Amino acid sequence: MPQNPPSKDDKNQLTHFDVSGKAHMVDVGEKKETHRIAIASGSIHMKPETMALVLAGQADKGDVLGIARIAAIMGAKKTSELIPLCHPVGLTKVTVDFTTENTCVTCRAQAETMGKTGVEMEALTAVQVGLLTIYDMLKAVDRGMVMTDIHLQEKSGGQSGHWISEK
Amino acid sequence: MPQNPPSKDDKNQLTHFDVSGKAHMVDVGEKKETHRIAIASGSIHMKPETMALVLAGQADKGDVLGIARIAAIMGAKKTSELIPLCHPVGLTKVTVDFTTENTCVTCRAQAETMGKTGVEMEALTAVQVGLLTIYDMLKAVDRGMVMTDIHLQEKSGGQSGHWISEK
Amino acid sequence: MPQNPPSKDDKNQLTHFDVSGKAHMVDVGEKKETHRIAIASGSIHMKPETMALVLAGQADKGDVLGIARIAAIMGAKKTSELIPLCHPVGLTKVTVDFTTENTCVTCRAQAETMGKTGVEMEALTAVQVGLLTIYDMLKAVDRGMVMTDIHLQEKSGGQSGHWISEK
Amino acid sequence: MPQNPPSKDDKNQLTHFDVSGKAHMVDVGEKKETHRIAIASGSIHMKPETMALVLAGQADKGDVLGIARIAAIMGAKKTSELIPLCHPVGLTKVTVDFTTENTCVTCRAQAETMGKTGVEMEALTAVQVGLLTIYDMLKAVDRGMVMTDIHLQEKSGGQSGHWISEK
Amino acid sequence: MPQNPPSKDDKNQLTHFDVSGKAHMVDVGEKKETHRIAIASGSIHMKPETMALVLAGQADKGDVLGIARIAAIMGAKKTSELIPLCHPVGLTKVTVDFTTENTCVTCRAQAETMGKTGVEMEALTAVQVGLLTIYDMLKAVDRGMVMTDIHLQEKSGGQSGHWISEK
Amino acid sequence: MPQNPPSKDDKNQLTHFDVSGKAHMVDVGEKKETHRIAIASGSIHMKPETMALVLAGQADKGDVLGIARIAAIMGAKKTSELIPLCHPVGLTKVTVDFTTENTCVTCRAQAETMGKTGVEMEALTAVQVGLLTIYDMLKAVDRGMVMTDIHLQEKSGGQSGHWISEK
Repeated sequence: MPQNPPSKDDKNQLTHFDVSGKAHMVDVGEKKETHRIAIASGSIHMKPETMALVLAGQADKGDVLGIARIAAIMGAKKTSELIPLCHPVGLTKVTVDFTTENTCVTCRAQAETMGKTGVEMEALTAVQVGLLTIYDMLKAVDRGMVMTDIHLQEKSGGQSGHWISEK
Repeated sequence: MPQNPPSKDDKNQLTHFDVSGKAHMVDVGEKKETHRIAIASGSIHMKPETMALVLAGQADKGDVLGIARIAAIMGAKKTSELIPLCHPVGLTKVTVDFTTENTCVTCRAQAETMGKTGVEMEALTAVQVGLLTIYDMLKAVDRGMVMTDIHLQEKSGGQSGHWISEK
Repeated sequence: MPQNPPSKDDKNQLTHFDVSGKAHMVDVGEKKETHRIAIASGSIHMKPETMALVLAGQADKGDVLGIARIAAIMGAKKTSELIPLCHPVGLTKVTVDFTTENTCVTCRAQAETMGKTGVEMEALTAVQVGLLTIYDMLKAVDRGMVMTDIHLQEKSGGQSGHWISEK
Repeated sequence: MPQNPPSKDDKNQLTHFDVSGKAHMVDVGEKKETHRIAIASGSIHMKPETMALVLAGQADKGDVLGIARIAAIMGAKKTSELIPLCHPVGLTKVTVDFTTENTCVTCRAQAETMGKTGVEMEALTAVQVGLLTIYDMLKAVDRGMVMTDIHLQEKSGGQSGHWISEK
Repeated sequence: MPQNPPSKDDKNQLTHFDVSGKAHMVDVGEKKETHRIAIASGSIHMKPETMALVLAGQADKGDVLGIARIAAIMGAKKTSELIPLCHPVGLTKVTVDFTTENTCVTCRAQAETMGKTGVEMEALTAVQVGLLTIYDMLKAVDRGMVMTDIHLQEKSGGQSGHWISEK
Repeated sequence: MPQNPPSKDDKNQLTHFDVSGKAHMVDVGEKKETHRIAIASGSIHMKPETMALVLAGQADKGDVLGIARIAAIMGAKKTSELIPLCHPVGLTKVTVDFTTENTCVTCRAQAETMGKTGVEMEALTAVQVGLLTIYDMLKAVDRGMVMTDIHLQEKSGGQSGHWISEK
């Protein structure tokens, strides 16, 4: 349990709520259009024999990661439909990469815009949809896969500037 | 690296690919319409002071979890738009719960249908969208939050019957 | 202010909430698939000279009501995307009619399904999108139009049977 | 019946049609990007005992208006998908408020953009989806609710400048 | 110009219109749920050097056809959103194949359902989206590509039974 | 079969792939916002008696082409949802025209934006959805219709400047 309950002033720290606690899509009209970049990543863990199927697909047939990449890119474009208070954003770039290590596939997505609001949610949504698609394509052989460690790695642009995850 | 490379026969274990390795939406036309249930869960970890804001919202104003619940339910309905080879499913029920413990919020989603194909992806998508929405609403105060341990807990119905995660 | 505050038992009258007040998509899995019909209507009021433009379009060019009809039918198909706790429904029929009287256009929509849950929301959504589309097409000449009297006229099928508005 | 049938010249008053009466998405390419604001409102009337349930939810459990607010904000983002000839707009702000009086809930939505075209339709769509969501959540106890008086209250920005409803 | 103008009775040949010529989503409620299959195909013609890039991608990197296949399958699921009077259909299977010959890629899509209405539009939409995606990925090197010969090849199920194109 | 297999350098001709052949949404952040226009067209061939029904609708009832026009305009707005690597674009204008000649309807769509990337795909998607909608509305009387000759006619704006089809 949290030891330090927030004071009354803490409420407006949450920009998605007004002073009376009601949700709104926050005003970004006066924000500058700057070049904004966000990078997110996350992993999915599977059985060794499942990973063998993934790797076989890369070399040969049944390209699980190629399909997950397309789903992730398309997912980034759906962010503002999925996240209630997200602003619609004109994405100028989305890239999605997968790396494999032991029994784990890691998805890394980078989103960019020239806009008034950041693209952290777009990068994170791309990662989540990418991982979900991998799960979908492999679940017939491995229902116990676990998606983990999904987080923002880095973002730049906007008032809050450059931020890098301590992880 | 996987120790046991798959034999040639392993390819058709991946039902989303045909024998030549091409992706398809697998034929479920002959499957029985049964009552299918899937339960998934996942967590998001945050700073103690961020959790304090979440808990304050439950008691008072700025209901982060209430909004995330709505987003998760709506997200479940978007599953077949997000996951390339998912069949459209007529969901008959979706419930989403959140529990908080220390600095972690856990989201648990249950999806049901009377249909020809399972709803594992719907339950998992609900969890992912729920966690992403929490991230979105709290990111102004805590960009370092991490989503983790997203997995299927249990599913029933269909040819493969009842399955429970060993976790 | 309401004179009769609800007793504690009243809460579960609202089927979209569980006993603890949390929103869910209610379980319809055990409901019977019956033929369900819903009829809704609503009106938009405008200046006489605006109505003259609408009527001119019917006879000649610039078919405001024909376009609003298409938008209304397509809107019915989007209902479960717009209304958070609505079930996806396989609509088997949608019809939309417009009648004009004095300075008022009335939109009437009928939706049908063979399913486990009613289509009241589909009929009402069709009406709202139809009226909004009329507003959009005429707003350049009449911003003061008012949409009014949008309500369910009649519904049949399902456990609650036949219901007709007293209006 | 309108007394003054429009002359032939009246056709191009309807900007959504070209000179031959064919619908198009009107050219806004040369319009200036200005700060545009629109405010719309509308009401839903219900039985006293239904309103009591709404008010109970605000104080305690089953937050009908909180969910309707989220649906309304998300609905605003879907405007150009619903209204055939609407331009896609990069919304910079959406707020939605509800007030209750006797047996009536009034929804008021404000939409803003820095763009080439107004956001009247976005504000009106938010109101309609907000009212529809209230209807959906309460219809199990009160099918006879009526949505009424949905109109634009005020708009500013763009060539036509500031406009306030006479109502 | 057609030599044989339709008689008055011809109007209701077009099932998407009622007797007064108004569009509606036609009633399929009484139709039987049968196994329905539709197969459509279409081609895109390009320069020899563009085709060389497509073929290189199949053998190696830059898998244009693999991505077009995913887009086509996802497009099939969007049919009822795109085509105004199409019923939403629960697709049970979608497969998409590409064959190459000289300077032409041919896309062939098969859609299936157990439902009350056919899936011809789903198969055709899959083909169109598949071809458009190929165009998009190759347009940087060959803007003059032409899509052609998009048609229904065959359909079965439903009242009208088995039909095969004469082509 | 192509006589001249591409050299290794040819791969990066396909801008939708990175140097290792992985698909991405290409970076347009540094591109200039210019006025971009694209015009596409395509045709659908039908039986004489089917064309007679189309023409009857224009003069009287059952306006096939009016509905196809609306579908085409709405389809243009869905382009970035359908085509995996397309950027979302703020369309400033969409017009769609149909001409009839003998047993053929030709659809011509023009899309415009003030943006960082072209609108060729938007114009082509409008044409495809327009033709599909015509097919849908007439298929009850003529399943053998063929869509053909869908191509870009002309585009202007952006780095590659003005381009006109040689056809």
